[in-house]
Amino acid sequence: MQMQSRMTPRKRSYLDPIHHDIVLDRHDPSDRLIIDLIDTPEFQRLRRIHQLGVSNFTYQGAEGSRFTHSVGVMYIASQLIQFLADRSPEILENRALILATALLHDIGHGPYSHVTEKILGYDHEDWSCRIILGDTGVNKVLSEFDPEFPHWIAGILRKERTPKYITNMVSSQLDCDRFDYLLRDSYLTGTAYGLFALHRILSSLEIDHDNDRIIVAGEKGQTAVEDYLFARYSMYQQVYYHRKNLAARALLSRIIKRARLLKDAVCFIDEPTSKWLSGQHLEVEDFLFLDDQQMTYHIKRWATDSDEILRDLASRFLNRKLFNATKLPWMNIQDVDSIKAKAKSMVAATGLDPDYYVAIETTGLRPYDYYRPNAKSPQTNIMVRTDRGEIVELSSISPTIEALVRGSFDTYWLIYPSEVRDQINEMIDSHLKSAVR
Amino acid sequence: MQMQSRMTPRKRSYLDPIHHDIVLDRHDPSDRLIIDLIDTPEFQRLRRIHQLGVSNFTYQGAEGSRFTHSVGVMYIASQLIQFLADRSPEILENRALILATALLHDIGHGPYSHVTEKILGYDHEDWSCRIILGDTGVNKVLSEFDPEFPHWIAGILRKERTPKYITNMVSSQLDCDRFDYLLRDSYLTGTAYGLFALHRILSSLEIDHDNDRIIVAGEKGQTAVEDYLFARYSMYQQVYYHRKNLAARALLSRIIKRARLLKDAVCFIDEPTSKWLSGQHLEVEDFLFLDDQQMTYHIKRWATDSDEILRDLASRFLNRKLFNATKLPWMNIQDVDSIKAKAKSMVAATGLDPDYYVAIETTGLRPYDYYRPNAKSPQTNIMVRTDRGEIVELSSISPTIEALVRGSFDTYWLIYPSEVRDQINEMIDSHLKSAVR
Amino acid sequence: MQMQSRMTPRKRSYLDPIHHDIVLDRHDPSDRLIIDLIDTPEFQRLRRIHQLGVSNFTYQGAEGSRFTHSVGVMYIASQLIQFLADRSPEILENRALILATALLHDIGHGPYSHVTEKILGYDHEDWSCRIILGDTGVNKVLSEFDPEFPHWIAGILRKERTPKYITNMVSSQLDCDRFDYLLRDSYLTGTAYGLFALHRILSSLEIDHDNDRIIVAGEKGQTAVEDYLFARYSMYQQVYYHRKNLAARALLSRIIKRARLLKDAVCFIDEPTSKWLSGQHLEVEDFLFLDDQQMTYHIKRWATDSDEILRDLASRFLNRKLFNATKLPWMNIQDVDSIKAKAKSMVAATGLDPDYYVAIETTGLRPYDYYRPNAKSPQTNIMVRTDRGEIVELSSISPTIEALVRGSFDTYWLIYPSEVRDQINEMIDSHLKSAVR
Amino acid sequence: MQMQSRMTPRKRSYLDPIHHDIVLDRHDPSDRLIIDLIDTPEFQRLRRIHQLGVSNFTYQGAEGSRFTHSVGVMYIASQLIQFLADRSPEILENRALILATALLHDIGHGPYSHVTEKILGYDHEDWSCRIILGDTGVNKVLSEFDPEFPHWIAGILRKERTPKYITNMVSSQLDCDRFDYLLRDSYLTGTAYGLFALHRILSSLEIDHDNDRIIVAGEKGQTAVEDYLFARYSMYQQVYYHRKNLAARALLSRIIKRARLLKDAVCFIDEPTSKWLSGQHLEVEDFLFLDDQQMTYHIKRWATDSDEILRDLASRFLNRKLFNATKLPWMNIQDVDSIKAKAKSMVAATGLDPDYYVAIETTGLRPYDYYRPNAKSPQTNIMVRTDRGEIVELSSISPTIEALVRGSFDTYWLIYPSEVRDQINEMIDSHLKSAVR
Repeated sequence: MQMQSRMTPRKRSYLDPIHHDIVLDRHDPSDRLIIDLIDTPEFQRLRRIHQLGVSNFTYQGAEGSRFTHSVGVMYIASQLIQFLADRSPEILENRALILATALLHDIGHGPYSHVTEKILGYDHEDWSCRIILGDTGVNKVLSEFDPEFPHWIAGILRKERTPKYITNMVSSQLDCDRFDYLLRDSYLTGTAYGLFALHRILSSLEIDHDNDRIIVAGEKGQTAVEDYLFARYSMYQQVYYHRKNLAARALLSRIIKRARLLKDAVCFIDEPTSKWLSGQHLEVEDFLFLDDQQMTYHIKRWATDSDEILRDLASRFLNRKLFNATKLPWMNIQDVDSIKAKAKSMVAATGLDPDYYVAIETTGLRPYDYYRPNAKSPQTNIMVRTDRGEIVELSSISPTIEALVRGSFDTYWLIYPSEVRDQINEMIDSHLKSAVR
Repeated sequence: MQMQSRMTPRKRSYLDPIHHDIVLDRHDPSDRLIIDLIDTPEFQRLRRIHQLGVSNFTYQGAEGSRFTHSVGVMYIASQLIQFLADRSPEILENRALILATALLHDIGHGPYSHVTEKILGYDHEDWSCRIILGDTGVNKVLSEFDPEFPHWIAGILRKERTPKYITNMVSSQLDCDRFDYLLRDSYLTGTAYGLFALHRILSSLEIDHDNDRIIVAGEKGQTAVEDYLFARYSMYQQVYYHRKNLAARALLSRIIKRARLLKDAVCFIDEPTSKWLSGQHLEVEDFLFLDDQQMTYHIKRWATDSDEILRDLASRFLNRKLFNATKLPWMNIQDVDSIKAKAKSMVAATGLDPDYYVAIETTGLRPYDYYRPNAKSPQTNIMVRTDRGEIVELSSISPTIEALVRGSFDTYWLIYPSEVRDQINEMIDSHLKSAVR
Repeated sequence: MQMQSRMTPRKRSYLDPIHHDIVLDRHDPSDRLIIDLIDTPEFQRLRRIHQLGVSNFTYQGAEGSRFTHSVGVMYIASQLIQFLADRSPEILENRALILATALLHDIGHGPYSHVTEKILGYDHEDWSCRIILGDTGVNKVLSEFDPEFPHWIAGILRKERTPKYITNMVSSQLDCDRFDYLLRDSYLTGTAYGLFALHRILSSLEIDHDNDRIIVAGEKGQTAVEDYLFARYSMYQQVYYHRKNLAARALLSRIIKRARLLKDAVCFIDEPTSKWLSGQHLEVEDFLFLDDQQMTYHIKRWATDSDEILRDLASRFLNRKLFNATKLPWMNIQDVDSIKAKAKSMVAATGLDPDYYVAIETTGLRPYDYYRPNAKSPQTNIMVRTDRGEIVELSSISPTIEALVRGSFDTYWLIYPSEVRDQINEMIDSHLKSAVR
Repeated sequence: MQMQSRMTPRKRSYLDPIHHDIVLDRHDPSDRLIIDLIDTPEFQRLRRIHQLGVSNFTYQGAEGSRFTHSVGVMYIASQLIQFLADRSPEILENRALILATALLHDIGHGPYSHVTEKILGYDHEDWSCRIILGDTGVNKVLSEFDPEFPHWIAGILRKERTPKYITNMVSSQLDCDRFDYLLRDSYLTGTAYGLFALHRILSSLEIDHDNDRIIVAGEKGQTAVEDYLFARYSMYQQVYYHRKNLAARALLSRIIKRARLLKDAVCFIDEPTSKWLSGQHLEVEDFLFLDDQQMTYHIKRWATDSDEILRDLASRFLNRKLFNATKLPWMNIQDVDSIKAKAKSMVAATGLDPDYYVAIETTGLRPYDYYRPNAKSPQTNIMVRTDRGEIVELSSISPTIEALVRGSFDTYWLIYPSEVRDQINEMIDSHLKSAVR
């Protein structure tokens, strides 16, 4: 008895505010795999990447990392497996594969995730695959468990593998990733918008063996699924697309744009950052050095750079002197371009460089979409089994969801420094009046 | 100092799980009025009427009373007054009136509220007015405060009084009543569906002085309002319209129907109950004796009545042997009638009286509707001020809400005893097949 | 597929605000037993008995029933079994027995539970045993499952049976009953006092096979157990012993005292109530008719009785005109008696009958006590396994808990009508001064 | 109307998960001061310092910053002012001073706060004063509001100023700092331990004008205060003193120790960090560059340093290969020294440098202490007003709190690499046995 408490404990607990004790058991091979993956340097690196980028500028509690989120996704996946196994016990054979994929789905994120992804033109899923397939701790752990695992997991992340229920679980419009981030972001931001009945959804899901083994929601979960989609819609409207968040992201991308232009002329830049910004080939090892902390450290140094633009932008970022963001009442690209041009002149007149101080951001999430074969990235349908046993696409039986599909959500935002706020707004007003005429 | 702690304390706290300490101050005349109203026998009676009728048969925690809900509505109204007073300080002159109306809006509810209202054909708002205007403690307290108050409050409950913001606050599609019950019912049932961002809504509301002094939601509250409407929709779908809840309500109404028929032939009936069931004129005093506990006491006695039907129905209710409820896949009244007739024959064949063991229930809430002048009870629009200052009706700018307005939500349910479940379902299936042909 | 959704569903869910979905599976024999027990009239009756007696007069949300609490205790027991089974799989053989005992532990409660228990001199555990052993639905369900079960369960409730871990789980200082009621009462009253880390405690408990198979807490649960004991202490101080709660209980017991004296001379009394109050022999069937609703119905009738005392007391209760309660600064019984005598004279002088309008209530819970062999009801120790493997009694290693054991908590309260508050307080003050001299 | 929505909005909201909308009003001078202080670079820097140091290694959600905590403390102070003003309206004159002090109390924290404070021998309160008094944005904002403010605030932080209630509010055993961090840390770690009834405490506090204007708790808040002290005790036991947290802190201090020794020989060190580690005089500007991100950036670089010890320690930290921590069953310093010496030999035998791989950590918080005039840092008593009006020190009337004062809580922990765990534990066991003999 006495001895036992000193051995490596059999259970490992991850203490999480959303899911409470996430307990893994070293005697269970899948759990053991997950523990080993969490212990790799590549996964520990996710502690240094914020889940919500710069949202903490608007919702101050948004300070969580992709590490906790990723553990949460894995946990929800493990719960969902338990529910599905009730009717489809064969899923248990894929438990290790599903949990590992759920855990690793974000492993390829870079500094400030989506912001840098966009401006530097890379895709975090490619990097996830490179890390999983490369000479890394993650690859080693996976290969030792099963030599096929790295390729299988990369295949799932690229949506190329069957059975379909695995992709449904980790990468679809009703997946464990979204389940976790909505609940977690709601919790950390302190908003009620993202809350939904997770347990009710999980317990209503089942694998449809007549239909390519996709996941369908039972009738008793339909309202919960609708509520979840609405929660996602609300979180985008209120949190992710908060105007100050758009402004902060625009500022960050302007900093990177400027630093790229100056390249090694900046006062401080370390090697991996230099390679990354200048678009040179990055080894996996270089990429793994990049994270929010390396980026912020550079910005802190740049706040005393001799280049006036870089110095000013970096200071604004550090000290939260954010730009302004105004929603444009037009959808018409000509109007938007004309407004942007006028804004640039106004900013130029104050002595600021309009290329770094004016921007257009676009937002527009369709909270749910059905499969459109010709879309750029066609979505997987959410399928529901009605109480009379038919399997149908959700929006076909739910008037509220049908509206989400039909709605047009695209919006343009003008970003500019607060110094010119009054002028900008007058300009928009007069443009608006002339348009009406 | 010592003495002070023994005097009647200046502050009165109502300790509430939703709003925490609701503190009233005897030195403030409006607060004092509210304390005195809460202390009347008529208001204390609300402790004996369930807020959610028989929902505790499905959601076991739904055991709260109209007393706590009513105090909660008053509290939310007091918070909203504080927000509105920021821009419209003149609202403070109406504080006592608004709080009293919010507190008393449900004072006229009878046993198991909406269920008996329907079968016995009375309206709780009429009784609210009778109690407020009659020879009651409530009337006395109100009249002493201001002789006009009873009439004013009755006028507001009948939606006949201005300023419009008062009616908006206590009886509209965005009122303090709904705010409280959604949050409270979510809390007690333990569901996430009814949660929404109350504080965000309250802080975004304002009185529009250009527009008849109605209440409008500022742009920053729009998503929260949409989320609230969706919360209401979800609560109806999941909680209030739960199939077992419909079945329990049908059972209760059958018990009343039977007892009315038998009248004083039943083994036990007290005077106010006898008058009430037989449709005789009820004095206010009689009505105030009626509550869930008086009703349940009768049902307990009736569970040993010599009338077989009454005895059986009463026992089913007490022991939660509820009927079954099946959603009918038709909207067509001919189909519904035909199904009902067939179900009655099946039930009759088992020896049960079909008039008491078969029923059709209809559900169908449009979570939000705009003002339709020709509707039976036209709704008050929810108005929003856009970020460019226009006042518009919500569904005109929100695609999701527009869908809620457009959607058709009416549904028919067949209620029957579980003894005939298999037969009933086969019958519905075959009807369905022949309909398709 | 289609058919399946219409059969009796395999899973039964009890939707609970504390534990969320409590799911039982008809294919599992123990779960099936629990479903059948819940469906008995005796268990459904618990819906009509408040968990917290008259506490809703002070904490308005305290409106829950013993039904929901009992289901909650059963659920926590099922979770604890799962944890214990990890190391002691043999516990699974007793799963049905433990769950049934946990579910039924309160089945013998009468109207307003502890209040009437005290004044009428009966013990709810005796009635629990009579119901379990008598000719009841509960007995039938249990006997069909296993003819020994009724006797075994009665034996456990009387603490006469081994293995000891069963008694520890359902009736000890660290049992599932207390776990549930602290969390539930905290939730319903909206206080933070009763919250503690249930999951942490459950996961730290184990059966000590060297020690008569008692339950011990592992070292990692020690702080959580201390926190739980402190939570219990706080709940007693703030909620259960709230002065207005003591006053309400005193009032209720005075009503019963008066009705017993008048016996059938009261305006209304039904047969079981008459038997009960007059101390005649009650059949199980009579007892089962008694509940909070039957009691309240009588009080409502008595509020118009011709006996002035009964009428006044009943009205005070219905309309929440509660007595006052003052904590006496003495522990000395002579002082208390003298104060009580003086208070009686004062009350008599106002024309009220002091036997019904003055009372002494005593409170005093030792939140935890170690086993004292000579105590009236000796407590079972809470045992802890230290990180070096020894099993010790909690207070021997925890200075904070040792204090709880040592502390003296008994307090006397004087109960009297608010009409004489000032006089009473002056009298206590002058008594206090003379005592100091 | 239209224009208004574009001007700088009058209200500024900080959206916080603990306190929800913290709304400041630019038209109120104190609120305006707070907004301006929050906008300074020195305060924004707190976003880059974790509130809980390295606790996220054990409780993964512990990722919040001192920024959010500081805003929270200010908010609680503003609420407390409102409560106190009810009886002591003169406190409103000091509102700006109190809020500013509450906001700035942590402004002088360095990287990983308490860990580096200890090893580098500085005190964050000194730095708070230097920042407040130096040539900084904070100083400028304060001086413009009132030239005396910098000195006054520094005086309060050094506990040298009256009225006493101000110090009580921001720096005592019952202060707004502790209120916020217990609730916030509970929330982020997801533990129930730190929850307590904040509102109940705040509403029970009052200024005692007979007693040097200290703050005392009214009788109705006593249980809540006890519960709060117990919450603090539990949080220390479970979270702050978690064994893996002690191990992480020991590792971090070893990294700093090694880097200091190597000084500029390390592969990378920037100027402020170099000055700081080598103990050179730091200007305020240098200090402000230091934060968790600068520290972590260095550790990342050091993980590839040529010095083997630094490289290994840095890698362990980044990849969460933490040391082990074992609680020593002795309080005797001789025993502890002897154990430490033996552990060092064992570690040396494995080739690791014992000066960097073995450590003793001590823990020991007395959750509450009364004023002991000869103590190193004497504590301010928590005073309570009893229900008969006397003002007494808490432990004198509360047996549970008296125990907290009396208890001995000091504990020694041995820290060592997991490679030698088995040997270390055997050694401790045999030492334990020989000690018993």
